[in-house]
Amino acid sequence: MGDDGRLHAIDDDDASSAHQLSYIDIYPLSNYYFGSKEPLLFKDETLSDRVLRMKSNYAAHGLRTCVEAVMLVELFKHPHLLLFQIRNSIFKLPGGRIRPNESDIDGLTRKLTKKLSANGASDASHWEVSECLGMWWRPDFETLLFPYLSTNVKGAKECTKLFLVKLPESRKFVVPKNLKLIAVPLCQIHENHKTYGPIISGIPQLLSKFSFNIIGT
Amino acid sequence: MGDDGRLHAIDDDDASSAHQLSYIDIYPLSNYYFGSKEPLLFKDETLSDRVLRMKSNYAAHGLRTCVEAVMLVELFKHPHLLLFQIRNSIFKLPGGRIRPNESDIDGLTRKLTKKLSANGASDASHWEVSECLGMWWRPDFETLLFPYLSTNVKGAKECTKLFLVKLPESRKFVVPKNLKLIAVPLCQIHENHKTYGPIISGIPQLLSKFSFNIIGT
Repeated sequence: MGDDGRLHAIDDDDASSAHQLSYIDIYPLSNYYFGSKEPLLFKDETLSDRVLRMKSNYAAHGLRTCVEAVMLVELFKHPHLLLFQIRNSIFKLPGGRIRPNESDIDGLTRKLTKKLSANGASDASHWEVSECLGMWWRPDFETLLFPYLSTNVKGAKECTKLFLVKLPESRKFVVPKNLKLIAVPLCQIHENHKTYGPIISGIPQLLSKFSFNIIGT
Repeated sequence: MGDDGRLHAIDDDDASSAHQLSYIDIYPLSNYYFGSKEPLLFKDETLSDRVLRMKSNYAAHGLRTCVEAVMLVELFKHPHLLLFQIRNSIFKLPGGRIRPNESDIDGLTRKLTKKLSANGASDASHWEVSECLGMWWRPDFETLLFPYLSTNVKGAKECTKLFLVKLPESRKFVVPKNLKLIAVPLCQIHENHKTYGPIISGIPQLLSKFSFNIIGT
């Protein structure tokens, strides 16, 4: 318990490809179909309830890992990030907490299917989860998230991992009725902590090493 | 001219390694030797002189590309970033502008050797330049840098690329007398725009996908 999740690192550097630019294909928003399905039930709880729940989960399962998807579409020739908007003022990346012993990829695929796919559709559970873009750590239950682990912290309580999810040329998004999926331009998100919080507002920087290959406009 | 540098992208994604954690070996600051050498001459100019020089260089050579090194050492079990401190209040990553037709790697190696190596030493020019962590664009001479290119910008004027440079277990840094090389903890840099500017203060986020393998303490 309290494993910080960093023990199983494997060096995957490939010197021959390290210096090549990576690119992301992005397709017009109009290529995608958006439908709706029955609302998802959310835990409606106070902040102190949430801390209590996190503490009991930590005691039972150790480090809580959340996985979130960075998905891009093109609009007005500029990359846009797909976000859930909740009650007008809260913005979230699609994703959620993985189960104990579930892999990051399986957990993210499950969450994306639950929140963005038609129930029971044959292609519903295919999501192209690509590389990890960044990780944020919560050293203690009540504290903020940081993009590094302080070494005087024995067991981090939560880790949020952002994964690039590459969208196909076209697909259906079927969104629960109590969630709203929106596309926000990177230029609006960049350094906009106040609206989007530290994790989302840093995504344009995390994506800056890629070149965007805008297709079909 | 005005090539935005993104045209030659090559897909280097390797699905089999995309989901593995990458790590960076970091060694104690005390493993490194710091010496000094004769001062480097800097162009002492006003902001408007600088804009004039950028404009004439752009007319002659097109997009100006700067390459900068992200190098880490360990101190108090926390990763520290190596920075130049100039006149107490200005912090810069080691690096500089590449020459027309020079590769990013060759340019960064030349700049690091000039600013951090003993003149004429046999191992002076070996630097392990690893992956590109991020890019910042200056759409116009007078504007700020952004981690994306707006599409209504025809020819970006400047691109700053950050490269991870992996330090060996030990090496000599020989620093010009008019520069000061310092090691700053990531926790002090994170979101500290005011002191370090937007590029350096975002480096902890860009590094957050790596796990740090602290060796020899």
